[in-house]
Amino acid sequence: MGVSNVDIAEVRAWAHEGGEMAKRYFNNVGRELKADQSWVTQADVEVEHMLREHIARRYPDHGVMGEEHGVGEIDREFVWSIDPIDGTGAFVSGLPLWCVSIGLMRRGVPYLGVVYLPILNDYYWTDGEGGAFWNEKPIRVITTDTIQDNDWLAVSSYAHRTFEISFPGKTRSLSSIATDICYVARGSALGAVIAKAKLWDVAAAMAILQAAGGVVHLLSGPRVETTSLLDGRSTGEPFIAAAPEMIERLRSYVAVR
Amino acid sequence: MGVSNVDIAEVRAWAHEGGEMAKRYFNNVGRELKADQSWVTQADVEVEHMLREHIARRYPDHGVMGEEHGVGEIDREFVWSIDPIDGTGAFVSGLPLWCVSIGLMRRGVPYLGVVYLPILNDYYWTDGEGGAFWNEKPIRVITTDTIQDNDWLAVSSYAHRTFEISFPGKTRSLSSIATDICYVARGSALGAVIAKAKLWDVAAAMAILQAAGGVVHLLSGPRVETTSLLDGRSTGEPFIAAAPEMIERLRSYVAVR
Repeated sequence: MGVSNVDIAEVRAWAHEGGEMAKRYFNNVGRELKADQSWVTQADVEVEHMLREHIARRYPDHGVMGEEHGVGEIDREFVWSIDPIDGTGAFVSGLPLWCVSIGLMRRGVPYLGVVYLPILNDYYWTDGEGGAFWNEKPIRVITTDTIQDNDWLAVSSYAHRTFEISFPGKTRSLSSIATDICYVARGSALGAVIAKAKLWDVAAAMAILQAAGGVVHLLSGPRVETTSLLDGRSTGEPFIAAAPEMIERLRSYVAVR
Repeated sequence: MGVSNVDIAEVRAWAHEGGEMAKRYFNNVGRELKADQSWVTQADVEVEHMLREHIARRYPDHGVMGEEHGVGEIDREFVWSIDPIDGTGAFVSGLPLWCVSIGLMRRGVPYLGVVYLPILNDYYWTDGEGGAFWNEKPIRVITTDTIQDNDWLAVSSYAHRTFEISFPGKTRSLSSIATDICYVARGSALGAVIAKAKLWDVAAAMAILQAAGGVVHLLSGPRVETTSLLDGRSTGEPFIAAAPEMIERLRSYVAVR
């Protein structure tokens, strides 16, 4: 255990529990319910409630912020930042790459995280001390001198309206920001280009990415400062996740429309 | 059984067998092997060989064409058109939506088909007589008068370089043409915009789409004529898969760069 004294195996178990709760709604909703989408909110709220109960019981001194129940006690040393279902668009569309995202910030900086993809039963995680893992396998970001045809960028599902992208490889939208970043951390995607995000979208994934050797920079150049996102505001600007050596190159392929 | 006398349950079992063979390679390959990608070809060749053996044994009068072993006996009334792993880019990248695609053409027109997604254990299929199904559930394409934020188009993973897309909803690249079209058939995606394809990419999915009420048109307007693709040539031109009522509207959102 690191300085946070958090039991990462237990956090993985919470993520799994959230995934099982969400799966009961996935692909199991009638057409009229699909239209109004309150059922997604319902699944989101249920999972976040469960996660907050676990956190409050085990780590009563920690703060918590989350997509559904908002921001609280962000002045604590440790603040959890959770997205019960990241990728609700994918979830609604019956696509498999949505996830449960549980991050822990230490003094405003991503410290540890678990991103769990229930449909694949895949965990991406770091305990903040010992590297990044995809299930039990260590992972690392990739770099390349020459972009090959199978190199790809993860992009937002509205990138076709937001960006002009001249990247010579492929682009794919997985429809979850946390999953996008985990595929970068794993060395599958060369980078991720995200239009904007709030802290609960990226807290866990950024901890994993950093432990895998990656960084997150605003499209305008500077590194993303997560301390300014603790109040729940959006990055407000597009950003890129990749290996440090790739950031400059990838920035050159992306222009805002 | 329809006029082809093909046992669709047996074809589903073949697709499953192919999926199990391919899964042994998926996410199970070292870095140096990933670079040269001959292992994907190996998986492709193994699965196609198995499918051709099953077909030759059960339907010796039928022709077969496939991605790996080419075109033969296309003058027969029934010709199988198979893609052992559609979406090798997804397969190589550890993404889940690749599939085994087994289509049967009758006099050059898609007649029945099975598209199997091994990672999700999802079957899309039609026996050519009784509608289209996702597993055991009947499916149908969707239409809409007003494009909503969660409406989406499946697009090629190099669409950012090939097309200018003004669609007001989302775009996603699943990285398998057959899977793209099945998500249209299922009523999840509003349409699919494909840069080009050969018959084995689309034979099964087109049969399923048609049975689900959908059509496939070239971007220039006319319907795709599959008889001209039996010799293994590419469509040569982008095309759109959607409900008939949506084709004109979707065409208006897509321009070739």
